[in-house]
Amino acid sequence: MPAKSKAKVGILGASGYTGSELVRLLLRHPNVEIALLTADRRAGQEMRTVFPQFSPFRLPKLVAIEATDWKKAALDLAFCALPHATTQKVVSDLLAKAPKTRVVDLSADFRLHDTAAYARWYGHEHHAPKLQKEAVYGLVEVHRAAIRKARLVANPGCYTTCAQLPLVPLIKAKAIALDGIVVDAKSGMTGAGRSAKEEMLFSEVSEGFHAYGVGHHRHMAELDQEFSLAAGREVVVTFTPHLVPMNRGILSTIYVKGAGGKSPEDLHAILSKHYAKEPFVHVLPFGQTPQTRHIRGSNMTFIGVAKDRVPGRAIIVSALDNLVKGASGQAIQNMNLMMGWPETTGLEQVALFP
Amino acid sequence: MPAKSKAKVGILGASGYTGSELVRLLLRHPNVEIALLTADRRAGQEMRTVFPQFSPFRLPKLVAIEATDWKKAALDLAFCALPHATTQKVVSDLLAKAPKTRVVDLSADFRLHDTAAYARWYGHEHHAPKLQKEAVYGLVEVHRAAIRKARLVANPGCYTTCAQLPLVPLIKAKAIALDGIVVDAKSGMTGAGRSAKEEMLFSEVSEGFHAYGVGHHRHMAELDQEFSLAAGREVVVTFTPHLVPMNRGILSTIYVKGAGGKSPEDLHAILSKHYAKEPFVHVLPFGQTPQTRHIRGSNMTFIGVAKDRVPGRAIIVSALDNLVKGASGQAIQNMNLMMGWPETTGLEQVALFP
Amino acid sequence: MPAKSKAKVGILGASGYTGSELVRLLLRHPNVEIALLTADRRAGQEMRTVFPQFSPFRLPKLVAIEATDWKKAALDLAFCALPHATTQKVVSDLLAKAPKTRVVDLSADFRLHDTAAYARWYGHEHHAPKLQKEAVYGLVEVHRAAIRKARLVANPGCYTTCAQLPLVPLIKAKAIALDGIVVDAKSGMTGAGRSAKEEMLFSEVSEGFHAYGVGHHRHMAELDQEFSLAAGREVVVTFTPHLVPMNRGILSTIYVKGAGGKSPEDLHAILSKHYAKEPFVHVLPFGQTPQTRHIRGSNMTFIGVAKDRVPGRAIIVSALDNLVKGASGQAIQNMNLMMGWPETTGLEQVALFP
Amino acid sequence: MPAKSKAKVGILGASGYTGSELVRLLLRHPNVEIALLTADRRAGQEMRTVFPQFSPFRLPKLVAIEATDWKKAALDLAFCALPHATTQKVVSDLLAKAPKTRVVDLSADFRLHDTAAYARWYGHEHHAPKLQKEAVYGLVEVHRAAIRKARLVANPGCYTTCAQLPLVPLIKAKAIALDGIVVDAKSGMTGAGRSAKEEMLFSEVSEGFHAYGVGHHRHMAELDQEFSLAAGREVVVTFTPHLVPMNRGILSTIYVKGAGGKSPEDLHAILSKHYAKEPFVHVLPFGQTPQTRHIRGSNMTFIGVAKDRVPGRAIIVSALDNLVKGASGQAIQNMNLMMGWPETTGLEQVALFP
Repeated sequence: MPAKSKAKVGILGASGYTGSELVRLLLRHPNVEIALLTADRRAGQEMRTVFPQFSPFRLPKLVAIEATDWKKAALDLAFCALPHATTQKVVSDLLAKAPKTRVVDLSADFRLHDTAAYARWYGHEHHAPKLQKEAVYGLVEVHRAAIRKARLVANPGCYTTCAQLPLVPLIKAKAIALDGIVVDAKSGMTGAGRSAKEEMLFSEVSEGFHAYGVGHHRHMAELDQEFSLAAGREVVVTFTPHLVPMNRGILSTIYVKGAGGKSPEDLHAILSKHYAKEPFVHVLPFGQTPQTRHIRGSNMTFIGVAKDRVPGRAIIVSALDNLVKGASGQAIQNMNLMMGWPETTGLEQVALFP
Repeated sequence: MPAKSKAKVGILGASGYTGSELVRLLLRHPNVEIALLTADRRAGQEMRTVFPQFSPFRLPKLVAIEATDWKKAALDLAFCALPHATTQKVVSDLLAKAPKTRVVDLSADFRLHDTAAYARWYGHEHHAPKLQKEAVYGLVEVHRAAIRKARLVANPGCYTTCAQLPLVPLIKAKAIALDGIVVDAKSGMTGAGRSAKEEMLFSEVSEGFHAYGVGHHRHMAELDQEFSLAAGREVVVTFTPHLVPMNRGILSTIYVKGAGGKSPEDLHAILSKHYAKEPFVHVLPFGQTPQTRHIRGSNMTFIGVAKDRVPGRAIIVSALDNLVKGASGQAIQNMNLMMGWPETTGLEQVALFP
Repeated sequence: MPAKSKAKVGILGASGYTGSELVRLLLRHPNVEIALLTADRRAGQEMRTVFPQFSPFRLPKLVAIEATDWKKAALDLAFCALPHATTQKVVSDLLAKAPKTRVVDLSADFRLHDTAAYARWYGHEHHAPKLQKEAVYGLVEVHRAAIRKARLVANPGCYTTCAQLPLVPLIKAKAIALDGIVVDAKSGMTGAGRSAKEEMLFSEVSEGFHAYGVGHHRHMAELDQEFSLAAGREVVVTFTPHLVPMNRGILSTIYVKGAGGKSPEDLHAILSKHYAKEPFVHVLPFGQTPQTRHIRGSNMTFIGVAKDRVPGRAIIVSALDNLVKGASGQAIQNMNLMMGWPETTGLEQVALFP
Repeated sequence: MPAKSKAKVGILGASGYTGSELVRLLLRHPNVEIALLTADRRAGQEMRTVFPQFSPFRLPKLVAIEATDWKKAALDLAFCALPHATTQKVVSDLLAKAPKTRVVDLSADFRLHDTAAYARWYGHEHHAPKLQKEAVYGLVEVHRAAIRKARLVANPGCYTTCAQLPLVPLIKAKAIALDGIVVDAKSGMTGAGRSAKEEMLFSEVSEGFHAYGVGHHRHMAELDQEFSLAAGREVVVTFTPHLVPMNRGILSTIYVKGAGGKSPEDLHAILSKHYAKEPFVHVLPFGQTPQTRHIRGSNMTFIGVAKDRVPGRAIIVSALDNLVKGASGQAIQNMNLMMGWPETTGLEQVALFP
């Protein structure tokens, strides 16, 4: 495809890790041109100053969002990787001025459909309730058809993608008990973003391990919505996030009980069949469980199912790269669907191990 | 105490990590003299060749176990840090020839009291069934009185110590449901020892996270024994170990349901009261959970209790250093009791963070 | 290019890290088909067992070298990633039976042209002296023309590539003093390969730093050869390798003195001009120095030049990924030249940071 | 010694890493009582909130420096671990109001004796020039006698301690050439302190390596002063600091040329003899070089000397823990001297490895 016919995409919030990951992947995407990069604090700087790995590449200079004329920018698609709440205002403004631009939003702002749930979890009314209704939840493997037609896609969270991919098919198949599900999740540090906080310093994170937000993490709202949708009734799971001294990767250890006489082997069979043709979900042989390092840098999710020694119970382990399938890779997968391109375009990177 | 009156101790298996950790701690223990160090593969070498951190110290040369005359060695106490199975033979021999020597065994060989359970989990009959009966399970906070009089103490495993310290008092108090307990455990690499295996190489372990032995880890036998003893009925918990890219530390995230109307706050109160005077177990304020880095290098266990959002359920997090409270520190705590010394002698190291 | 017209390549020694890195890169190389994978200890196994990151891909089963019929295999090119010494025998045999197959050898076996130097550094006569003469030293940026016509290319070492890329142009330009050059080099652990040795265990490597082979590292032979060739007289540099607790990356801090009145700025100008059109060497602005993380996973080398406060002296810092530009990426760059393909084919990966 | 007779010490700036390291060590120092902890931003908080590892210990609450009455505090000794420049004002004020209190200052503020050198390196006149003259440079192994009588000791920097301990005796012995010395230094992250800066985040530091401040690092001023003092003429060395993805440890690789016919073996002999009786400096056998992990958490410095293959040149490697011998341990060593206690009191910790 000649350069002039490439789609023009913008990345709002390019100085964070999901922003740089979008650049990494889009630089090698054959159908797009990176036409706009915003970063308010770093406006006026070159991307190579903020992320030296891009020194050998030509990229637009970073600009401030306020200085951007959305109509003139004429983006085919904008990836929005901005902090919570800011996003609602920016996306409203962008879509008002450039209604043909499509948006994949990587924040949590448009993930909840229910205005009451949003207000309860975030402590304020949503600033763009119409868009909240319009937004499609962008977990491709679950909502593929709706995403194809969407103007605004809410890219799922990394923790929740890792929990939903193994659990949604099992819930839909009524193969597991809906009460008592425990999701023990472990994430690398990039999931916390690039803001300079004491608790994110190298010396506070390396050579140690801990849980955080025990009992009350915001990601639960998203799980509640999607699991309840899949079940046709309210489902509330126990979820504990932990921080691993590594950069990339999420691993969820999920404790479930078979329902309707389903054994761990049955759960494995359901998932294997369900994902047999999905390009980005791979189910390991029964009894094997994944390691995060084996999906690092790729858009893959690996899922394993093992038998617990407690009768009737199974242990499911899922792993993905929080910056790829858990964020920027999934955002590009959504873009590919929205633009009518093959879903895997630009996402064929093989995992980097070691 | 003058040097000549110091107790003579030996460390069998001094070239591994629990061995070097014993040396680290015992070098500063006021009541003991390190009189013997064995290491079969490294026999004839200086300890400083095997562990250069000991270069500035005078220590006996490493010798082979076979070359050791137990009677002549006249040890007051031997720490046995040998691989599984070897241990049974060595301890039998040692106690036959030097019946006054006391033994703290850091392997799993004498932890199970039940010969049938031992045979089932390890695939062979125990080679020293009499000693198996005699051995006292050395979790100090639970079996202190018996340890004081013991000749042979089986030092508990690191994973199991981390799970038992929070759970045993709750089980004894009948404060939690005995079915459905989930222990999701995460350990640093030193828990796997110092043997040269591909899966333990730096590049196989760093920058990643994974579960192992899912559904069938041997440590479960020890948990079954002690939890069932505490409950007065059989208790079988779900237990999954994981490897964290760090050297030291175990953190257990434990999912329980209150029993008899006990709330998470009640569970916290029970543990706080139970451990109020224990020097090596510290219960954090309700809702706070520990980090492994804050107990690194010390003999402390930190325990936190938080409320799950699922009604009636609590999340308990415990953390300890697998080489100290999970192995060598606990072994010295056992020695202190057996020798009639203050329990904290030589174990006052403050955690090393960062 | 349709699949049937792809070049057939083999990887001898596919169970090590340079082997897996070749697979990672070649899976996305448009012109090749991975037709053969050997791994003696793992023969009969699937590649996914040895490297689970390849689970989603179809790859030939691992076979033993002895079981391979080179004529029948009819490889267009073989990458040889075998241990030292073994290589000489295998390559001799392969080229005798399949003279049309071309070979890129990633070991050190064919890097030295001088038989006496080889014997002195390695302690034995070369087993294939004719091939030793035939082999072309595969540092593309220096020996591009010869590589194009070569049947057997000796892929340079990772340390030496990192030192040669900044130094060879300066030596050729007579811009630096040839005596007193100091190369202080630091490498990640994958440079040491995947063999299970105690000193490579996670707990022996993480959270610490050290030099090794101080004063007598074998890589020096390669530097001597190439620097002396560039200078037209014997050049012997001081070289010290160190191990960094990270997986990938080499960084060399190089201390030089300008010659012929050349200032640090002049050295920078020489390198900038020299590498202006090279796709895989990028010279940073004067005074800036690179970080290994910014070239991780890519075939790039970053070079920085800064002024020392000692008059007339400059500090040069170069960085590359030891598994890519320092091994498998460079090997593919060599293959591209040998096969007449664009040099960058299959090597466009952008660095993975964070 | 009964509690009431213990010396009262204060730590100014207790919320940073050198502050917490002082607390770690002083909690087990038999002669002192921690009577005061200041931390302006965290004033009013408990130390356990700022550093949870101290949860089991009783410590004074953090207070603001401004709220402290130095006379009433009646400290025997104050450790000052405050940021640059602030220090000069605080120490002046403290010594004016409580002239009997002694001070060990861990900042760089009082290390340079020369007011002109201070102004040149720091860009402003010193705010307490009289104290600057009075201050004794606290490298114990070099200035022991003066330290014993000092009221104000300027604790040396971590990088400079690591470079001075091997070089000062060699310079004094006229055993090495004074020109062309290269110090290639590598440090763990705690050397950068605990301030929340983007470049210190885990994801910016782990899995990578880089040099910084190339050619113009402020620590050089301190090296110039002490090396010139030792030599009796101006000595200017080349010094490059690097960051290692680890918490603790500094390793310096030092390139020198023997003078007066001194061989590398001679240099080793000079250092071995010089440090034979020093409790905290250990010279390894000739040809062996140290690893940072083997001195972690201890007050030891390990030094190794090896022969370079370039005739007449030696490579010296020194290693210490930047938070102990490089900061807080050395500060306590200074205190012990100033108070007339045995120099090793409270500093007997054995290194923590792994």
